[in-house]
Amino acid sequence: MDKFSYLLPANAAGFKDRYVTKVTECISHYSTGIRGEIGLIGLPFSKSSISHSQAGEAPNTIRDCLSNITTYSGEWKMDFKDKMIVDFGNVAIHPINTEESLSRIYTSIKEIIDSKSCERYIMLGGDHGVSFPSIRAFQEKFGTIGVLQWDAHHDVRNLKDGGRTNGTPFRSLLEGRFVNGEHLVQIGIRDFSNSQEYHGYTKEKGITVYNMADVEQEGIVPLVKQEVERLSKEVDFIYLSVDMDVVDQAFAPGCPAIGPGGVTSRELLGSVAEAAKHKKVKALDIVEIDPSRDFRDMTSRLAAHVMLRFMYIK
Amino acid sequence: MDKFSYLLPANAAGFKDRYVTKVTECISHYSTGIRGEIGLIGLPFSKSSISHSQAGEAPNTIRDCLSNITTYSGEWKMDFKDKMIVDFGNVAIHPINTEESLSRIYTSIKEIIDSKSCERYIMLGGDHGVSFPSIRAFQEKFGTIGVLQWDAHHDVRNLKDGGRTNGTPFRSLLEGRFVNGEHLVQIGIRDFSNSQEYHGYTKEKGITVYNMADVEQEGIVPLVKQEVERLSKEVDFIYLSVDMDVVDQAFAPGCPAIGPGGVTSRELLGSVAEAAKHKKVKALDIVEIDPSRDFRDMTSRLAAHVMLRFMYIK
Amino acid sequence: MDKFSYLLPANAAGFKDRYVTKVTECISHYSTGIRGEIGLIGLPFSKSSISHSQAGEAPNTIRDCLSNITTYSGEWKMDFKDKMIVDFGNVAIHPINTEESLSRIYTSIKEIIDSKSCERYIMLGGDHGVSFPSIRAFQEKFGTIGVLQWDAHHDVRNLKDGGRTNGTPFRSLLEGRFVNGEHLVQIGIRDFSNSQEYHGYTKEKGITVYNMADVEQEGIVPLVKQEVERLSKEVDFIYLSVDMDVVDQAFAPGCPAIGPGGVTSRELLGSVAEAAKHKKVKALDIVEIDPSRDFRDMTSRLAAHVMLRFMYIK
Amino acid sequence: MDKFSYLLPANAAGFKDRYVTKVTECISHYSTGIRGEIGLIGLPFSKSSISHSQAGEAPNTIRDCLSNITTYSGEWKMDFKDKMIVDFGNVAIHPINTEESLSRIYTSIKEIIDSKSCERYIMLGGDHGVSFPSIRAFQEKFGTIGVLQWDAHHDVRNLKDGGRTNGTPFRSLLEGRFVNGEHLVQIGIRDFSNSQEYHGYTKEKGITVYNMADVEQEGIVPLVKQEVERLSKEVDFIYLSVDMDVVDQAFAPGCPAIGPGGVTSRELLGSVAEAAKHKKVKALDIVEIDPSRDFRDMTSRLAAHVMLRFMYIK
Amino acid sequence: MDKFSYLLPANAAGFKDRYVTKVTECISHYSTGIRGEIGLIGLPFSKSSISHSQAGEAPNTIRDCLSNITTYSGEWKMDFKDKMIVDFGNVAIHPINTEESLSRIYTSIKEIIDSKSCERYIMLGGDHGVSFPSIRAFQEKFGTIGVLQWDAHHDVRNLKDGGRTNGTPFRSLLEGRFVNGEHLVQIGIRDFSNSQEYHGYTKEKGITVYNMADVEQEGIVPLVKQEVERLSKEVDFIYLSVDMDVVDQAFAPGCPAIGPGGVTSRELLGSVAEAAKHKKVKALDIVEIDPSRDFRDMTSRLAAHVMLRFMYIK
Amino acid sequence: MDKFSYLLPANAAGFKDRYVTKVTECISHYSTGIRGEIGLIGLPFSKSSISHSQAGEAPNTIRDCLSNITTYSGEWKMDFKDKMIVDFGNVAIHPINTEESLSRIYTSIKEIIDSKSCERYIMLGGDHGVSFPSIRAFQEKFGTIGVLQWDAHHDVRNLKDGGRTNGTPFRSLLEGRFVNGEHLVQIGIRDFSNSQEYHGYTKEKGITVYNMADVEQEGIVPLVKQEVERLSKEVDFIYLSVDMDVVDQAFAPGCPAIGPGGVTSRELLGSVAEAAKHKKVKALDIVEIDPSRDFRDMTSRLAAHVMLRFMYIK
Repeated sequence: MDKFSYLLPANAAGFKDRYVTKVTECISHYSTGIRGEIGLIGLPFSKSSISHSQAGEAPNTIRDCLSNITTYSGEWKMDFKDKMIVDFGNVAIHPINTEESLSRIYTSIKEIIDSKSCERYIMLGGDHGVSFPSIRAFQEKFGTIGVLQWDAHHDVRNLKDGGRTNGTPFRSLLEGRFVNGEHLVQIGIRDFSNSQEYHGYTKEKGITVYNMADVEQEGIVPLVKQEVERLSKEVDFIYLSVDMDVVDQAFAPGCPAIGPGGVTSRELLGSVAEAAKHKKVKALDIVEIDPSRDFRDMTSRLAAHVMLRFMYIK
Repeated sequence: MDKFSYLLPANAAGFKDRYVTKVTECISHYSTGIRGEIGLIGLPFSKSSISHSQAGEAPNTIRDCLSNITTYSGEWKMDFKDKMIVDFGNVAIHPINTEESLSRIYTSIKEIIDSKSCERYIMLGGDHGVSFPSIRAFQEKFGTIGVLQWDAHHDVRNLKDGGRTNGTPFRSLLEGRFVNGEHLVQIGIRDFSNSQEYHGYTKEKGITVYNMADVEQEGIVPLVKQEVERLSKEVDFIYLSVDMDVVDQAFAPGCPAIGPGGVTSRELLGSVAEAAKHKKVKALDIVEIDPSRDFRDMTSRLAAHVMLRFMYIK
Repeated sequence: MDKFSYLLPANAAGFKDRYVTKVTECISHYSTGIRGEIGLIGLPFSKSSISHSQAGEAPNTIRDCLSNITTYSGEWKMDFKDKMIVDFGNVAIHPINTEESLSRIYTSIKEIIDSKSCERYIMLGGDHGVSFPSIRAFQEKFGTIGVLQWDAHHDVRNLKDGGRTNGTPFRSLLEGRFVNGEHLVQIGIRDFSNSQEYHGYTKEKGITVYNMADVEQEGIVPLVKQEVERLSKEVDFIYLSVDMDVVDQAFAPGCPAIGPGGVTSRELLGSVAEAAKHKKVKALDIVEIDPSRDFRDMTSRLAAHVMLRFMYIK
Repeated sequence: MDKFSYLLPANAAGFKDRYVTKVTECISHYSTGIRGEIGLIGLPFSKSSISHSQAGEAPNTIRDCLSNITTYSGEWKMDFKDKMIVDFGNVAIHPINTEESLSRIYTSIKEIIDSKSCERYIMLGGDHGVSFPSIRAFQEKFGTIGVLQWDAHHDVRNLKDGGRTNGTPFRSLLEGRFVNGEHLVQIGIRDFSNSQEYHGYTKEKGITVYNMADVEQEGIVPLVKQEVERLSKEVDFIYLSVDMDVVDQAFAPGCPAIGPGGVTSRELLGSVAEAAKHKKVKALDIVEIDPSRDFRDMTSRLAAHVMLRFMYIK
Repeated sequence: MDKFSYLLPANAAGFKDRYVTKVTECISHYSTGIRGEIGLIGLPFSKSSISHSQAGEAPNTIRDCLSNITTYSGEWKMDFKDKMIVDFGNVAIHPINTEESLSRIYTSIKEIIDSKSCERYIMLGGDHGVSFPSIRAFQEKFGTIGVLQWDAHHDVRNLKDGGRTNGTPFRSLLEGRFVNGEHLVQIGIRDFSNSQEYHGYTKEKGITVYNMADVEQEGIVPLVKQEVERLSKEVDFIYLSVDMDVVDQAFAPGCPAIGPGGVTSRELLGSVAEAAKHKKVKALDIVEIDPSRDFRDMTSRLAAHVMLRFMYIK
Repeated sequence: MDKFSYLLPANAAGFKDRYVTKVTECISHYSTGIRGEIGLIGLPFSKSSISHSQAGEAPNTIRDCLSNITTYSGEWKMDFKDKMIVDFGNVAIHPINTEESLSRIYTSIKEIIDSKSCERYIMLGGDHGVSFPSIRAFQEKFGTIGVLQWDAHHDVRNLKDGGRTNGTPFRSLLEGRFVNGEHLVQIGIRDFSNSQEYHGYTKEKGITVYNMADVEQEGIVPLVKQEVERLSKEVDFIYLSVDMDVVDQAFAPGCPAIGPGGVTSRELLGSVAEAAKHKKVKALDIVEIDPSRDFRDMTSRLAAHVMLRFMYIK
């Protein structure tokens, strides 16, 4: 708007320091022919949640948090301002038909992969129900898939008692043979948050489960390192699925299913950064943040930092 | 618990004045053979809402508000403590299948009517989507039905753009011929909250529409009186459907779609009380309260008083 | 994004009903050559506030509220969906230099007028300090200016005790001879919210003052009608300045200086609509909303409806 | 602090306009020999509340609100800045012994009257339990006492079911013969908020009761005028007791027992101002505000304006 | 309700997974002849709090939190769904008479012990004032009693300055010789939260005090282990009293007296679990949670997990 | 007020235990001739903040928190009740002129130093902009100055893009040669919160920077100890500047620029206590708390404890 001396677009930041680059400045909306390192897709879907959830608002809230974060790591002495992020926008969710919505997510992710416009992918949920169509799409495009799931819960509920809710994504993936039990690793599973039957199911299917006692004893970073190495030999592609309720309620007060005794922010950030180092790790979803219940978007801020630890690697 | 001197059940009120009767003391849970004047049914369904809504929490919140309200009217010098209310509980909602949920509401209301255990019915929503199966059930049991709808919106959206959402119940009732356009009266319709096309649809179908200018000029009580009298000659049964967003946001801050310029609390209470006087008025639903967004349950408190104006009549 | 079946831009509404037009759909960002009926400018400036205020966030919050409001008036049976609104964005505010910020507002409004791209103008504050540069700019472009000010306060504080704060805009306009006292009308002035000295100043300058007792006795609509008619004979251009704290705290809980005993939402909407009818009324500012202290954006929603009553006229 | 150029006491207002007087500037803490027109006493007592209440915090919150209110009435063209208010501080409440606390209130008010340092008295509660010792003290000092009680509730509960709670002050006053039933007027009593038995008790004792239907039909101001005139012929002293829950929840959201259908802010302010005109009206209490549940101190702000309507008379 | 296909009781959970058992499903209300492992008693008493407190609401809030917690420990591979909990309800508290309330608590706990219907006891406060009558009752029934108190404060205030407030329970127990100083262990005492005199009193009485520096240096689990072992040799019965303000404000934001520098959630859960292992540990109280000031019931959720660590032992 | 038996000043605490001394009881307002150990000055300035901030309210909020904190350390077995604190009040801030406000802060601190009434100084901000005039004043009075800065950010922004904002204090100090780069130590600098250019600037100027990785590896206490020792040999006076956003958002939720991955409360308290031991450490500022966005004043409570660790030394 060159004829106006001082006007800025309505949603622009009011203040710009010429020597600071915010992550939002590295984001471009998708257009034909664009290419970037990271693809960003919003999955504003939370109607499959068993309890009420406005997790569907998280993709935009997390994006907003990126406007307060810079591209520079002083610890690594590296600036990532040249790493372009392509924002594909959000998948249009059907108001009431959840199967239709899951199908749209699946189709959209396949179309995005087909566009070959980026190398790594970040999916912002939404509730954990989005991981079923998302992981399925990646599996069908890239071959055998390994999944690291940060979560307080197994998420392998039966489908009879309520259909494909946010408690079922990994059941759906296993039953549909999109993921092999040996290739699923669950980290941060919490006591008194799951049932004996579903714990038995994970054993039966060969899922690797690390509960909070394991995390405390072995350390989350070495444990993740070891599992990424193992998986990398067995699969073509590694997908990280971060259910934010793996984090203790003091550090992530905006999850629908908050509780005490989870991992700290640092344990989450450090372990995602560790996993992200491996070149087969190419996709990340972050789910189960309900901004309407958060305090000062603390949980979305943490999620934005999880994105950075995945995107920006040494 | 006669062996204990001071123990009360966990959810009992801590203090009881022997000379005061609270409405909750007049409520009995349904059991075979029970009979009361009023039947109370919770419809905790809000997954059909276009925007996120926790209106599904309202039935229990409104019930809780009844514990602060007494049975005595000083204005009429009448005590209603002998009017028994039968609480049928809440319809179990399916976590993700909205058609299934609507069907369960429909079936449950028919079963309740069949139980012949009460004379008048109060349905606590939920979002406005519950009125379709509810009114349909009453129509099929009682014959030609007239509906007075307090609402800022017409709620006759097309079904193609999102299915049976909370914006469509009266469309569904009219298209299914459960209600005749001439027997539907909309009160409190607000400017800049509807569209030309849907306004045209109400004209085409013969719906009687009173917007806020009409309410201000004619007065809501005389207007309701006149329409109840007209309907009573044409129908077998009159159903009141109160979408709380007909009320101005200052008086009902907990509706999902709040806005300025609506009716006041007194206009709502006075007009419901006027309608309730007629013996053909036998059912009431109250919808579109999201307790998670309310301030001190003000909107649910108002809804509880709406219940009283319907239940307790001279 | 034609190669993707379901993707929407990140900030797009998730649901679209083909038969409903929202006001936001009628807004275009300014580009050279564009022409529309209404020009919209954000003035996110609140550093001149005597007490802490985040009124600078209101322009974007009010814009967001327009996405919930349709273009159709059922009372007038008119659809305004063809009335284009040109959004010029927000004036860039200097982080600490308030004189510089006031100067940028002044310059920007003159540049916008010079662009000749619209017929009427809406300025969204910010605190009331923005009205000084805004009204001055209009005066210099259009000639003698009349101002209708809805306000609980005179806003004619002396400049010695704190400079050009949000308590001084009309003092600055009068002292600078940009507005003549006879052409300034203050409506809704409240008891125990002003001082004897400033009341004396309004008398001395010939300002017409209607306090709340006047509003209650004469009615706000007839009073506005009479003053618009009077002014229209004496001035070239009429500017409406709406300080939202003219409204009672129950209806506008988000103003920095809330209090009881003000006008109702209906009195505000009705009186702005009355003023807007006159063809010399061509500019409106809305100021003193602090979204960080509001409840569910109630005050910004009311402001959005004030915009509509100004924009959409019979 | 003359050696420092810019230092202000820690709790001083940061900004002072030399031409504006705030009510707080007219308040002096009590010291021997001081004389003022109004005496102000805080009664931070809410342990007698049946339900949990932090009404004990209201005296200080209401005082804080006075710092935003000026001494000038534009409607009357009168400045009250020379009317001195003597602040006696707050009565020290016993942490657990409510009888001791009531006794301290009673003693303190008698001591304050004995100090002969002011002409009219304002007591800031606390819950309604404070009115028993307060009115009793005035009765014993000034003779036959008439009471105008603005209240949604009769507050004449039996003493057996819980002792002297906040539901009993007028029972205690009547039973103790400190007030004669004919000299008690209750205004704004609300339906479904009282019981038949207590309504009967008011009849039996000769209390004059105006419920909300009376207020709506007769108008609150004429009704108060008529009762003050009647009482003034029968009593030596008139005491106003304002339970803020007489106000509708939209205008007074911070009362412990909020509900819809009460008086508006204007009805309250206008009727207190009407009563205050009479020279026998010499004491006012304001009770039942719980600042911890209010929104932006709206209810305390309204209370501060009630104080002004009592203090500042033509 | 077999004649209805889909109706659930009003407060039932909306969704049931057949393979998951929630703790609430293991709770039965007391009835004659019932026997269970754990007895649960609510002590909704907070009128003895020095500062305002709604800790009286905590028993029901903590119970509600149990509906989100399952009976299965994956770390121990044990399901506790067969461990029955008998809920005795809440002690009826007198509205104003605190001595009467303390007496009712004392009597109720003795009556519950006499019912011989359970083996271990959980008391949910309330403020810390409840521990005096509770511990006294257990002492009189079971003999010499040892107490482990998790607390930031000594709670041995003098009784002259305010009677038996929530700052005095252990003073009352020591002075009444219900507990011997050598048998009281205080863990987590915080700097700048107590006074020299009361610290001296603990020394004089032989109380064992571990402050936060001790906790940091020795580790809370070994320290608790050692003290339980010591006490077990000297007493007949060990009682755990958990004042939640021992926890850092980040992890327990809902205590009336929050502050920084306390124990973490894990330190609390781990140390209670350690103590619970010993067979002489048979009673637990959890006090000082004010749900009205908490964020998303985080503190009550933590308290519910404390219950589990006490109830469910290897 | 000896003629009244129970009256307390309006803002006095309601309850006093004769054996407990609160920190507020050790504070005296400045008067000529007074002498104390600690001087306390409020700098309620936040208009230089780049984003909206009400940090100007923090000085009074932090003071209020001192009323809940006692003077006794059980860990050191020392009572500090005889250490007098002189409260100089708050610097009067100009409503709009930030240069004037900075100048008033500078002048006030010099005047306070000149009063020679205390030995150590605590400045309560305000935003970080206050540290420029504050440190400058101390440098000019005491000679070469060393600064330990706890902060997530370098705060060395350029002055061209917005003037002396809260992002620039250390730039201003370095450019003005009030502090030498070698004498500035930054602790807790966080990744993705700064830019490459400003990191480069710190290197160029010789600033010692410890980022969060350093804190985690070396431990914050040893690191602070080492730097205080180094500085003490090179400077005359050591000033501690604590920007509370160095703390993780879970422990300090009320900072304007919150984020995950910062230091814990204990790390902050322990490291300030370590620094405070050295006799050259004589001044402390605490900045960047916005009480309007905090939860239960948690961040101000933590700040009050930081004050104690600085004031009360072994």
